[in-house]
Amino acid sequence: MSLQGNLLVAQSGGPTPVINASLAGVLTEALNHEDSIPEIFGGLNGIHGILKEDLVDLAAESQLTVRALRHTPGAALGTCRYKGRRPGDFDRVLQVVEAHNIRYFHYIGGNDSQDTAFKIDTLAKERGYDLRVIGVPKTIDNDLPLTDHCPGYGSVAKYLSATVREMALDNAAMGQNDFVSILEVMGRNAGWLAASTVLARRKDKSASDAPHILLLPEVPFQAEAFVGRVLEVLKSNPHCFVVVSEGVQDEAGNYLGADTSSADAFGHAVLGGAGEYLRTLVESRIEGVKARSAKLGIAQRAASHLASLTDVDEAFLCGQAAVQAAVAGESGKMVVLARIEGKDHYSVKTALAPLGEVANGVKAFPANWIGSDRMSVELPFIKYASPLIQGEIALPFENGLPRYAQLAAVRVKKTLEPFKS
Amino acid sequence: MSLQGNLLVAQSGGPTPVINASLAGVLTEALNHEDSIPEIFGGLNGIHGILKEDLVDLAAESQLTVRALRHTPGAALGTCRYKGRRPGDFDRVLQVVEAHNIRYFHYIGGNDSQDTAFKIDTLAKERGYDLRVIGVPKTIDNDLPLTDHCPGYGSVAKYLSATVREMALDNAAMGQNDFVSILEVMGRNAGWLAASTVLARRKDKSASDAPHILLLPEVPFQAEAFVGRVLEVLKSNPHCFVVVSEGVQDEAGNYLGADTSSADAFGHAVLGGAGEYLRTLVESRIEGVKARSAKLGIAQRAASHLASLTDVDEAFLCGQAAVQAAVAGESGKMVVLARIEGKDHYSVKTALAPLGEVANGVKAFPANWIGSDRMSVELPFIKYASPLIQGEIALPFENGLPRYAQLAAVRVKKTLEPFKS
Repeated sequence: MSLQGNLLVAQSGGPTPVINASLAGVLTEALNHEDSIPEIFGGLNGIHGILKEDLVDLAAESQLTVRALRHTPGAALGTCRYKGRRPGDFDRVLQVVEAHNIRYFHYIGGNDSQDTAFKIDTLAKERGYDLRVIGVPKTIDNDLPLTDHCPGYGSVAKYLSATVREMALDNAAMGQNDFVSILEVMGRNAGWLAASTVLARRKDKSASDAPHILLLPEVPFQAEAFVGRVLEVLKSNPHCFVVVSEGVQDEAGNYLGADTSSADAFGHAVLGGAGEYLRTLVESRIEGVKARSAKLGIAQRAASHLASLTDVDEAFLCGQAAVQAAVAGESGKMVVLARIEGKDHYSVKTALAPLGEVANGVKAFPANWIGSDRMSVELPFIKYASPLIQGEIALPFENGLPRYAQLAAVRVKKTLEPFKS
Repeated sequence: MSLQGNLLVAQSGGPTPVINASLAGVLTEALNHEDSIPEIFGGLNGIHGILKEDLVDLAAESQLTVRALRHTPGAALGTCRYKGRRPGDFDRVLQVVEAHNIRYFHYIGGNDSQDTAFKIDTLAKERGYDLRVIGVPKTIDNDLPLTDHCPGYGSVAKYLSATVREMALDNAAMGQNDFVSILEVMGRNAGWLAASTVLARRKDKSASDAPHILLLPEVPFQAEAFVGRVLEVLKSNPHCFVVVSEGVQDEAGNYLGADTSSADAFGHAVLGGAGEYLRTLVESRIEGVKARSAKLGIAQRAASHLASLTDVDEAFLCGQAAVQAAVAGESGKMVVLARIEGKDHYSVKTALAPLGEVANGVKAFPANWIGSDRMSVELPFIKYASPLIQGEIALPFENGLPRYAQLAAVRVKKTLEPFKS
């Protein structure tokens, strides 16, 4: 089982508050196996940089940097959205891998990234090159199949829930009746993030507390039903808090706010987004109501300052588990998180799932966790999500702001001809 | 000088992360003067609630609640935007004040609120009713005159700067060239908040670090100059970070994004806001550039989880100083913060300014602190603003989210006829 060779780790897709914690996990665990793994390389900008042989020496990073990676947003190695689809791409990856005697490959990413890892694993096997490929899950969207949840989700859920709780206190303070507060959150295909904001409710307040209305992409938007629900909430509350996924579509399949009839001075469609759309809808349809919308955008997936310690620890654990599995002889798998049932407290263990199955699946928000009004979520979801936001990180501050890691990024000498893409 | 009577405190205008810290300061200090001040009342929803005789007994609040107020967003007593302009309003306020033997009145708020306090003080003097009126400054916009800075500003500056730093790490990770990230922040009339995000830059990176372009309401927007500057930044940086005040106007005085030519299905103007406007502008005017915008909205003035300890302490201090001044016989003044010059470290003291002068002034961002390109700020501003974001609060968490105070709000018995407004 013992395979001697170097390790390559790379990051892919949209950053999360904890994708660097997974990198720290890979790096920390790899250092425990110096007999098998003499060198630890990082690929810059995912598969894109690997094709260009843009590698850095991760073992050269200081312990301080590795520790700081656990709470640093962005993606320290850089990521890409490139899937590696051009002819010759995967041949080139294998060339780079062989040139640097890489025997361990870890790709930290979502579906598309795991599909890339799957193809690399398949090609290596075809060529008879002994390469251990183990993926590390990552996505704030929480829509990867076969895992209980995804590293990245818990931290964004925590940040969004705290933000809803804070905004709701502001709304309540304003002493206005008939105020509608709208928050647009990420989630192009799945409503996991919008749903998570239900955690903002204080236990003693239950459904009368914000958020009052959750709009998930799994439910086609119906303006009449939505306006009716807002009116209902405003009967018993001075303000109504709406959380909307950016990916909500109407029954014709159009994204809310993607109104091509309104064009700017240059003839381009103005896409105000789902939140702005709802704000206009509410103000135009309900007499005397004032509405405000906010859109956190990239801020939500970069808000490491409010990361969930549970999430950070699990992201690190997934990185460690990937290296352990590879050293133990596994390949063509992704690390998944499995919840240990039957305990009185939340706990998880890691397991492995075939890359090919991860790559082609999407885990939608369960239909039976959506309330009968189609604008709320049920208690089993709260039980599922609540443990994922627990615990706070000890964030170092410098001059009033969070201090985040920067890699020294010592380049590895290139040995191949430049890649002609 | 010793005046025997009850104290009334109320909050007004938009909430800030520290308006409750000022309330805690008033309350804590008032408890030190039980010889002069037997009862401590809170007016609900500012002047609006005082007119209706909606008072609560603040001395009945637990010590735990008072301590938690220091880091609780919103406005625990509720606020209003009502200026008290109808005939009889101020007569009624005096009636309520007399009915409850109120001799100390503290109004925590911005310009308009201090104008209200000024009118109450003036009327009490005319009537020969001995009332001590001392205002407590509050505004995230930092545009009150006569004070070095305003409680509320430092905390929002800290949150915005941290957010810019985090988003910029995400932008850098994406490994895309020609990406423009736009953040719309509050500031209808003054650019203090947009300017503050310059603090996000790491010292070693200076101007090459995000944010690269700052658009303040003090500078009329010129599309050509802006697009030109974006192109310039993209020459040396893979991404360009733009921070725009919501209040930026073009040379004709129109708010950016308030395009009345684009109307929704109901005939209402779609106001995408300044950020969305710039996103569309950039994508339409620069070939191959991708842009994203975010708008933090109310979240930014409610983000107590990232409050500045300096700001919280100063807000509390202003509340304390207001009571001390009133007990010492002052009236018709607002507490201001004065920076003590000539020290090697930042320190402030409180002083008093006439309410009448505060009420009618606005402190614009100084013209000589705006860079020659009109899209940046100068070093003296950084020296001014940096001390205001220093220090972090110890925020209590419960079940994964910040635990915020809720007043018991024990109602004071009404003694007057209901107010006919």
